[in-house]
Amino acid sequence: MNGFRFELLSGEAIGPRLGRLHTPRGIVRTPAFMPVGTQATVKGLTSEEVQQIGAEMILANTFHLYLRPGADVIERAGGLHRFMRWEGPILTDSGGFQIFSLARLRRLTDEGVTFRSPLDGAEHLFTPERVLEIQRQLGSDLVMPLDVCLGYPADDEKAKEALRLTLQWARRSRAHAAGDGQMLFGIVQGGFSPALRREAVARTVEMAFDGYAIGGLSVGEPREATAQLVEQTCAGLPADHPRYLMGVGAPPDLLDAVSLGVDLFDCVLPTRVARTGTIFTRRGRVNVRNAAFREDAGPPDEGCRCAVCIRYTRSYLRHLFNADEMLGPRLATYHNLSFLAQLMEDTRTAIAGNRFDAWRREVLGAYVTPW
Amino acid sequence: MNGFRFELLSGEAIGPRLGRLHTPRGIVRTPAFMPVGTQATVKGLTSEEVQQIGAEMILANTFHLYLRPGADVIERAGGLHRFMRWEGPILTDSGGFQIFSLARLRRLTDEGVTFRSPLDGAEHLFTPERVLEIQRQLGSDLVMPLDVCLGYPADDEKAKEALRLTLQWARRSRAHAAGDGQMLFGIVQGGFSPALRREAVARTVEMAFDGYAIGGLSVGEPREATAQLVEQTCAGLPADHPRYLMGVGAPPDLLDAVSLGVDLFDCVLPTRVARTGTIFTRRGRVNVRNAAFREDAGPPDEGCRCAVCIRYTRSYLRHLFNADEMLGPRLATYHNLSFLAQLMEDTRTAIAGNRFDAWRREVLGAYVTPW
Repeated sequence: MNGFRFELLSGEAIGPRLGRLHTPRGIVRTPAFMPVGTQATVKGLTSEEVQQIGAEMILANTFHLYLRPGADVIERAGGLHRFMRWEGPILTDSGGFQIFSLARLRRLTDEGVTFRSPLDGAEHLFTPERVLEIQRQLGSDLVMPLDVCLGYPADDEKAKEALRLTLQWARRSRAHAAGDGQMLFGIVQGGFSPALRREAVARTVEMAFDGYAIGGLSVGEPREATAQLVEQTCAGLPADHPRYLMGVGAPPDLLDAVSLGVDLFDCVLPTRVARTGTIFTRRGRVNVRNAAFREDAGPPDEGCRCAVCIRYTRSYLRHLFNADEMLGPRLATYHNLSFLAQLMEDTRTAIAGNRFDAWRREVLGAYVTPW
Repeated sequence: MNGFRFELLSGEAIGPRLGRLHTPRGIVRTPAFMPVGTQATVKGLTSEEVQQIGAEMILANTFHLYLRPGADVIERAGGLHRFMRWEGPILTDSGGFQIFSLARLRRLTDEGVTFRSPLDGAEHLFTPERVLEIQRQLGSDLVMPLDVCLGYPADDEKAKEALRLTLQWARRSRAHAAGDGQMLFGIVQGGFSPALRREAVARTVEMAFDGYAIGGLSVGEPREATAQLVEQTCAGLPADHPRYLMGVGAPPDLLDAVSLGVDLFDCVLPTRVARTGTIFTRRGRVNVRNAAFREDAGPPDEGCRCAVCIRYTRSYLRHLFNADEMLGPRLATYHNLSFLAQLMEDTRTAIAGNRFDAWRREVLGAYVTPW
């Protein structure tokens, strides 16, 4: 883990935390949201723009890049950073989530998981070791072990078996990881049962990973359940290691999770909804296709400091989406990611000033439309 | 025509010319290629990027903007420049070409042309006067009169009738134009018959327009016919007025037309082919999806000075197109427009140095793949 270090500037195992994740490719100030660049591109944006937006780390998907263009192609191109021209740190997932959501004909054994590619139907085997090898080829900075992902709801028997395999694979991953050049996270699974989650945290922390991910949440369960399980998990994690809540990106959910003790986030939500014209504003979500914006000369979000809000109007954005122009999704994506970068910056400032709770209430109070 | 002036720096009525078109929104150095921003956006790019690329004037389509978002919406937004945030001059066409290619159920009378909107089937009447009013609402700098467009081939009778109407509409347009704040071009039509074209030039020039467009060419006729008709038209146009060849944008065609005496061009070709992965290079057209580029670490075009070629590889571009990523069309569009901006800059330098013909032969000699 040369060059990697997590510095907890303020906070405990639970409650809002301020930190700095040092990596050989730069420092990530936490709490931080990571834009998702599934196929070696944050959809519609150049790496320069993602940097301008203020993102300090991005996420890329092992499953997608392994299938296309291939981990070997990226390795020979000098790694993912060079291929996509992103100079900051990159976190890659294990592919587990995609295997369980996108691939066809999965076969799960203790060895690993066999699946068919959605691109050409070819069969592939992912084992914990193979998945780490692929991530080594990609050259990412933060890497994830293969895990078994459940949907919601999941019965207890299924959740237990999934956890058994996830923990077994975690052990194999820990043993296989070379230990330097990449930071290996353990993923805490355990479904929606507090008891199973408790066991998952304890067993995962025993293996002494470099950081911890909280997986399998925000997949349809009630919000209160998410909050409870996140809090409980955070309480069981060592305070001096970074925590990453997978797949959470709606502004109020980010603030909730920060208040419980999470440092890192990723989610396709801000970029995915942007492509249909939904933008984040300080008053809630808005779809710019709305007829009310036909001649609205205001910025997409009043008070936003991003390059899109400074230059363009809601009326123009509405026109771009109505006319099916590529620039629409691009500008909306830029704005939504900027919105989250600003929200995270304001979060860090509020934590540093010891006024996170009051600030969070104020932010949530301003939301008029639902999230 | 306050603030508008065409300055011919070198050249005659025919042969390569160097000029400067002065407008209240800036100077356009000619020969120049205008990127097409049909729906108030050069597809995929921001106005800032179009400026970075080196374009000094762009084109927008009256027909499209009239139908969506509506000329009234754009007028109330402060005009097209403000709506799309492009600060340089804008040329708008008359909508004639789109009526004859995109609209349904045209009815042509001496008064004007009635058509149904391809968006909602509603009926609209464009008269020469109305079309100028719409362009006044848009607030463009260079405006075009309504004309009748023919396809190829077109029989003599049809071409004669189309010319009769085009000339009648040109007279009405000349009479209707207020004369300041916008530059009104006459459009030389006349089909593919040298005799009709000769008459078209003479009658159009008599009306003393601010500039002249050559219309109805590059629609499928043989290249030699285009060249002959362009040359003949240029010979009949006053040397001290700008000439604009509509719809030409393939690099060798641009150089041919420059050699005959054309100053301005527009075409969707560079942007349209870009969206399917075809990029312009100094050796000819190339499709980046080609399997040969799987691991090609070279820039899209060797020798290109654009921001895409400096940062990205053919291998990465190929991946983006194969993965259907929006960034692919965007980067290819940026490159193709940069390629043309550089080609036009090199053209102007070659004309200024009195070595255009030799330089042009050299450029054309380097093309290996066909255009």
